[in-house]
Amino acid sequence: MTSTLTPPQALPRKSFGSDNHAAAHPAVLDALASASRGDVTAYGDDPWTERVSAQLSEQFGASGVFFVFNGTAANVLGISLMLRRYQAVICAEGAHLNVDECGAAERIIGCKLLTVPAADGKLTPELVAARLGGRGDEHRSQPAAVAITQATEVGTCYTVEELRRLGDFCHSAGLLVYADGARLANAAAFLGCSLSELAASVDVLSFGGTKNGAMGAEALIVMNPSLLADVPFERKQQMQLASKMRYLAAQFGALLDDQRWLRNARHANAMARRLADGVGGIPGVSLRYPVESNGVFAVLPPDLIEPLQREWNFHVWDAENHVVRWMAAFDTSEDDVDAFVASVRAAAGALTA
Amino acid sequence: MTSTLTPPQALPRKSFGSDNHAAAHPAVLDALASASRGDVTAYGDDPWTERVSAQLSEQFGASGVFFVFNGTAANVLGISLMLRRYQAVICAEGAHLNVDECGAAERIIGCKLLTVPAADGKLTPELVAARLGGRGDEHRSQPAAVAITQATEVGTCYTVEELRRLGDFCHSAGLLVYADGARLANAAAFLGCSLSELAASVDVLSFGGTKNGAMGAEALIVMNPSLLADVPFERKQQMQLASKMRYLAAQFGALLDDQRWLRNARHANAMARRLADGVGGIPGVSLRYPVESNGVFAVLPPDLIEPLQREWNFHVWDAENHVVRWMAAFDTSEDDVDAFVASVRAAAGALTA
Amino acid sequence: MTSTLTPPQALPRKSFGSDNHAAAHPAVLDALASASRGDVTAYGDDPWTERVSAQLSEQFGASGVFFVFNGTAANVLGISLMLRRYQAVICAEGAHLNVDECGAAERIIGCKLLTVPAADGKLTPELVAARLGGRGDEHRSQPAAVAITQATEVGTCYTVEELRRLGDFCHSAGLLVYADGARLANAAAFLGCSLSELAASVDVLSFGGTKNGAMGAEALIVMNPSLLADVPFERKQQMQLASKMRYLAAQFGALLDDQRWLRNARHANAMARRLADGVGGIPGVSLRYPVESNGVFAVLPPDLIEPLQREWNFHVWDAENHVVRWMAAFDTSEDDVDAFVASVRAAAGALTA
Amino acid sequence: MTSTLTPPQALPRKSFGSDNHAAAHPAVLDALASASRGDVTAYGDDPWTERVSAQLSEQFGASGVFFVFNGTAANVLGISLMLRRYQAVICAEGAHLNVDECGAAERIIGCKLLTVPAADGKLTPELVAARLGGRGDEHRSQPAAVAITQATEVGTCYTVEELRRLGDFCHSAGLLVYADGARLANAAAFLGCSLSELAASVDVLSFGGTKNGAMGAEALIVMNPSLLADVPFERKQQMQLASKMRYLAAQFGALLDDQRWLRNARHANAMARRLADGVGGIPGVSLRYPVESNGVFAVLPPDLIEPLQREWNFHVWDAENHVVRWMAAFDTSEDDVDAFVASVRAAAGALTA
Repeated sequence: MTSTLTPPQALPRKSFGSDNHAAAHPAVLDALASASRGDVTAYGDDPWTERVSAQLSEQFGASGVFFVFNGTAANVLGISLMLRRYQAVICAEGAHLNVDECGAAERIIGCKLLTVPAADGKLTPELVAARLGGRGDEHRSQPAAVAITQATEVGTCYTVEELRRLGDFCHSAGLLVYADGARLANAAAFLGCSLSELAASVDVLSFGGTKNGAMGAEALIVMNPSLLADVPFERKQQMQLASKMRYLAAQFGALLDDQRWLRNARHANAMARRLADGVGGIPGVSLRYPVESNGVFAVLPPDLIEPLQREWNFHVWDAENHVVRWMAAFDTSEDDVDAFVASVRAAAGALTA
Repeated sequence: MTSTLTPPQALPRKSFGSDNHAAAHPAVLDALASASRGDVTAYGDDPWTERVSAQLSEQFGASGVFFVFNGTAANVLGISLMLRRYQAVICAEGAHLNVDECGAAERIIGCKLLTVPAADGKLTPELVAARLGGRGDEHRSQPAAVAITQATEVGTCYTVEELRRLGDFCHSAGLLVYADGARLANAAAFLGCSLSELAASVDVLSFGGTKNGAMGAEALIVMNPSLLADVPFERKQQMQLASKMRYLAAQFGALLDDQRWLRNARHANAMARRLADGVGGIPGVSLRYPVESNGVFAVLPPDLIEPLQREWNFHVWDAENHVVRWMAAFDTSEDDVDAFVASVRAAAGALTA
Repeated sequence: MTSTLTPPQALPRKSFGSDNHAAAHPAVLDALASASRGDVTAYGDDPWTERVSAQLSEQFGASGVFFVFNGTAANVLGISLMLRRYQAVICAEGAHLNVDECGAAERIIGCKLLTVPAADGKLTPELVAARLGGRGDEHRSQPAAVAITQATEVGTCYTVEELRRLGDFCHSAGLLVYADGARLANAAAFLGCSLSELAASVDVLSFGGTKNGAMGAEALIVMNPSLLADVPFERKQQMQLASKMRYLAAQFGALLDDQRWLRNARHANAMARRLADGVGGIPGVSLRYPVESNGVFAVLPPDLIEPLQREWNFHVWDAENHVVRWMAAFDTSEDDVDAFVASVRAAAGALTA
Repeated sequence: MTSTLTPPQALPRKSFGSDNHAAAHPAVLDALASASRGDVTAYGDDPWTERVSAQLSEQFGASGVFFVFNGTAANVLGISLMLRRYQAVICAEGAHLNVDECGAAERIIGCKLLTVPAADGKLTPELVAARLGGRGDEHRSQPAAVAITQATEVGTCYTVEELRRLGDFCHSAGLLVYADGARLANAAAFLGCSLSELAASVDVLSFGGTKNGAMGAEALIVMNPSLLADVPFERKQQMQLASKMRYLAAQFGALLDDQRWLRNARHANAMARRLADGVGGIPGVSLRYPVESNGVFAVLPPDLIEPLQREWNFHVWDAENHVVRWMAAFDTSEDDVDAFVASVRAAAGALTA
C-alpha cells in the first residue's frame, strides 16, 4: 500500500479565498505534540484543558470557557443558551448564522431568525428596535437575543463604544447578546483593545481559533454566569464534546502563548491593508467596505474577475455588483500580497489596453 | 506570561479507564505535520481528504466517506440519514446512543429510540422483531432503522455470519441498519475479517479513529448509495463540517498507513486478553462478558474495587453487581498490564488475609 | 348534490372499544349552540373562555387554564413547559405518551423518555428513583420531570395519598410532575375526591373533556405558577391555539354545569363495574387489573376473543396473554352492559360445550 | 353553581376585526347535532369522515384529504410533507406562516423560511427565482418548497393563470408548492373558478373552514400522491389527529352542502366590496390593496383611526402608514356595513370640521 504520508499537492500559490485555506501554525503543531504525553482523563478533565480554559477566562473576564469543533457549532451552542423554544434571535441578513450554516440554528435550536439589513454588517440599537414588534403577542416568535459578528462578515468592526451602546440597549430591552467571534482576534488587533473590552458588553461570544492559525478549534466564552449551567449538556447534545479535549485546549494554548493570536491577527490585518493600499490606485478598482480586519472587499471591472480567478483563489462575494472578497491569513506574506496586486494591476491594464 | 507549552502533569500511570485516555499515536502527529503544507481549499475539497476518502471507500466498498468530529456525531448523522420525522430506531438498551449521548438522537433527529434488552450487547433478529409491533399504525412511532454497535459496549463482537443474518432480516423487514463502529477496528482484529466484510450487511457505519490512536476523528461510511445525497447538508447542519478538513483526513491517513489501525487494534485486544488471562486465577474475580475486543468486564469482590481505584484509573460499570470495566489502548504495554494484574492480585490477597 | 346531512350509518351496537367512540353529550351540543351568539374576539379573549377558565381554575386551585384540541397535545404542551432541551421525562413504559403518540414528545420537545416498567400502570417513588442515575453527568439526558396518568392506561387510580407521596418525592428530588388526566374525571369519581385534591401534588395536569362527553376539548391545568409564562407561546407554536376558542370553552362549560363531568364519570365507572361483576362468574374469564375507573381489562380464553369481536367492538390489549380491554362511556346503558355480558356468557358456554 | 349556559355578553356590534370573530354558521351546528348519533370508531374511521373526505377529494381532484384543527397546523403539516431536514421553504415576508405562527415552522419542521418581499402579497416566478441561490451548496439551507397564500394576507388573489405560471416554474425548478387556503373559498368566489382549478398547480393546499363558518376545522388537501404516505403519522405527531373526527368532518359536510362554502364566501366578499365602495368617496380615505376577497385594507387619516376603534372592532395593519384592515364574514349584513361606513363618514367629517 502506498503510504498516505506522501505529500499530496497543495494549492500552487497562496490563497486569498479564505483564512481557513491556510495550514495550521507550526506552534499549534508543536503544542499538539507537546500535549501528547501520557494518559489523561477524557472530556476536558485534564490539565491542558484546565490551564488553557483558565487563561482564556482570565483574559476575557469570563464565567466559563468551553471548546468546540467549529464556528457554526459555537454560534448554535451560544445562541441555544439564550432562547426558550418560542424565542427568536435578531441578526444581520448577511450573518454567517443566517446565510452560511445550512439553517443549523432553525434545525438545532428550532428558533426563528429575525433578520435585519445592515449596510456595513453591523447592527445598531435602531436596527434591533425595528424588529421588536409583537413582544408579548403569542402569535409572534419572541425576540430574546441579538447576534452580532465581530469582525463582521464584510470585515468591519464594532468599536468598543458601539458594542457598549448596543449591549446597553439590548440589555435594557431584555435581550441577551451573542457575538460570533470567528475573527475576534482580527477585531482586537484592529481596535487595539483587549479581549475583555470586546467581551464586556455581550453575554456569550466565540473566540475563533481556526482562522487564526489553529487546526480546528473554537472557544465559547460565557460571560453571563446565569447561562453557564446548560453548557455542558448542550455541548454534549450538540455533538461538540471532544473526548481527547486536551488537543483542542492545546491549540488555544499555542495561540495564547506570547499573544500569538494577536500577532497572527495583526499580521493578517496588515496584509489586508497592504493589499487594499496596493490596489488603491488601479483604475476601475474600488473598495466596497472599509478595511478593518483581514478581508478586502473590492469592486472590480466585471471582465477582470474571471482572468484573475484563473491565477488566484478568491471568492466573488456579490456577483451582481462585481464585488470580490480577498482574505489574508496569519501566513500571508508581503510577497504574496505584492504578487497578487501585480496580477490585479496587470489584468486591469490588459483590460484597458 | 508563562508559556502554555510547559507540559502539565498527565496521569501518573497508564489508565485502564478508557481507550480515549490515551494520547494520539505519534504517526498521527506526523501526519498532521505532513498535511500542514501550503494552502488548500476548505471543507474537504483538498487532496488529503480526497485521497484518504478514496482509500477508505475502497477498503469498505463504500458509496461515500465523510469525516466528522466525534462518535456521537457519527451516530446521530448516520441515523438521521435513515429516518423520516416520525420514524424510530431500534437499539440495545445499553447502546451508547441511548445511554451516553445526552439524548442527542431525540434532540437532533427528533426520533424515538425503541430499546431492547440485549444480554451481551448484541441485537438479534428475534430481539428486533419484538419491537416491530404497530407498523402502519399512526399512533406509533414507526421503526425504520436498527442501530448496532461493533464491537459492542460490553466488548463483544458480532460475527460476520451474525451480521449477515441480522442484516438480511432487517432489510427484508424494511429496516435500514446502522453500525456504531467506534471500536470497529477492534472487532475486525478479533474476527480476523476485512472492513468490507464488516460493512457488507449494513447501510451506514462509523469507523472510529479516536479510540484507535487518532487525536479526534471519525469516519462515516455510507454503504447504501440511496442515503448519500443528504449527507453533506446534514453534516453541515449538524455542525460537523470541518473547514480545515485535511487534518481529519490526515489522521485517518496515518491509521490506514501500513494498516496501522489494525495493528493498533490487535495490540489493544491482545493487552485486554493478557489482562483477562492474568486475573483469571485470582479468587473472587470473574469475567462478566467474553473478551472479544479491547475491554475486560470483570466481577470483583465489592471491597476490592475502591482500593484498586486509588491506584489505577478505571470505571465501575455496574455498581450493583460489582462489575468493573478495564480498557486497553493501542499504547498499553505488557508491563502496564502486568503491573495492573499484580495490583489486583495483591489487593485480592489483602482482602483474603 | 346529495346533502351530507343525510345521516350515515353509525356502529350498530354500543361500542366497548373506547370511550371516544361515543358521541358528544347533548348538553355539549346545547352549549355550542348557546355560544353561537354574536361576535367575540378570537383566540380566547371572549367571555365564554374567561368564565369557564375561571371556573376550572377555581375547582383545581390552578394558576392558569388553557384549552387545547386533544390529549396528545395536552401531554406534549404540559411536559414541554417543564424541560430544558437536554432534559428527560420519566414515565411508565405503557404510558400513552410513550406508546400511543407517535413519538410526539421526542419530535416536538426533543426530549428523551426514561421509561419504567409499572405493573399496574402506576409510578412510585422507588420506580422513579431507579431512573435518576447520571444526574449532573453531561453524557446523560437529565431527568427533570415525571409524567403519570390518572386514571392510568390500565384503569387503575393513584390515591390522593399515593399522589402526595410521589409528588413529595419528586419535588424533593428536583423533579416536576405532570399528570395525563385524559380520564381524570373517572379517577375523581372512583376516589370520591375533588379535582383540587387530585391536582394538589402535581405541577401541571390535563383534564380530559373528550372521553367525558365533549366533542373534542382538553384543558391544560397549570398549578405551578412558575410554569405559566411560556404557555401562550408554546400553545400557539404547538398549533393548539383555537381561533374560535369559545367553542372549546363552551364544551367544558357544559361538563362543569351541575357537575356533569362527575355524573358522566360516575356513570361510566358504574357501567364498567357492572360489566366486571357480570363476567365475574364466567368460567375462564378473569380480571387482569382492578376495576377503578371506566375500563375493564379481562383475560379471556383465547378462542373466545374472535367470536366476541364479531359481535362487539373492543380492543385486544395484550394478544400474547389474551387480555382484552372493554371501555364504558358516559352513555353506556345498563342494557348495553347486560347484553354484552350475555354475549360473553354465551360465547364462553359455546366454547365449553 | 351558576350554570355556564347563561349566555355571557358577546361583542355589542358586528366585528370587522376578523372573519374568525364570527360565530359558527347555524348549518354547522345542525351538522354537529346530526353527527351525534350513536357510536363510531375513532380517529377518522367513521362514515362521516369517509363521506366528507370523498366529497372534498372529488371537488379538488385530490389524492387525499385530512382534517386538522386550525390553520397554523394545516400550514405546518402541509409544508412538513415537502421538506427534508435541511431544506427551506420560500414564502412572502408577510405570510401568516412567517409572521403570525410564533415560529411554528422553524420549531416543528426545523426549516428555514426564505422570505421575499411581495408588494401585493403574491409571489411570482421572478421573486422565487431570486431565492434560489446556493442550491447544492452544503452551507446553504436548500429551497425545496414554495408557500403561497390564496387569498393572500392582504386580500389579493392569484389568478388561475398566475397559479399555473408559478406552479410550472416551481415544478420545473424542483420546488413543490403549498398553498395556505385559510380563505380559499373567498378566492374561488372572487375568481369564479372551481376548487380543482385552484388546486391544479399546487402539491398540497389547505381549505379553510373556520373563517368560512365552521366552528374550528381545516382540511389539508394533498394533490401530489407522492406526499400522501407520511400524512397520517405527521398529523398524529403534530397533535392534529382528532379522536372524534366525525365532528371535524361534519363541519365540512355542512359547508359542502349546497355549496354553502361558496355562498358564504360570495357573501363575505360582497360585503367587503360594499364596504370598499361605501368608503370610496370619503375624503382622506383610500384603498391600500385591490379588494379581491373579504378584506378591505384602507389608508385612513391618522386621527380617524382611534375614534373609529372606540366604536368598532378592527385591526391596524400597518401603523406607520395608517393602514387598517376591515374583514367581512359570512354573516356580515348590509346593515352592518352601512352602519360602519356611516361611522367612517361621520368620523371623517368630524375631523375635517
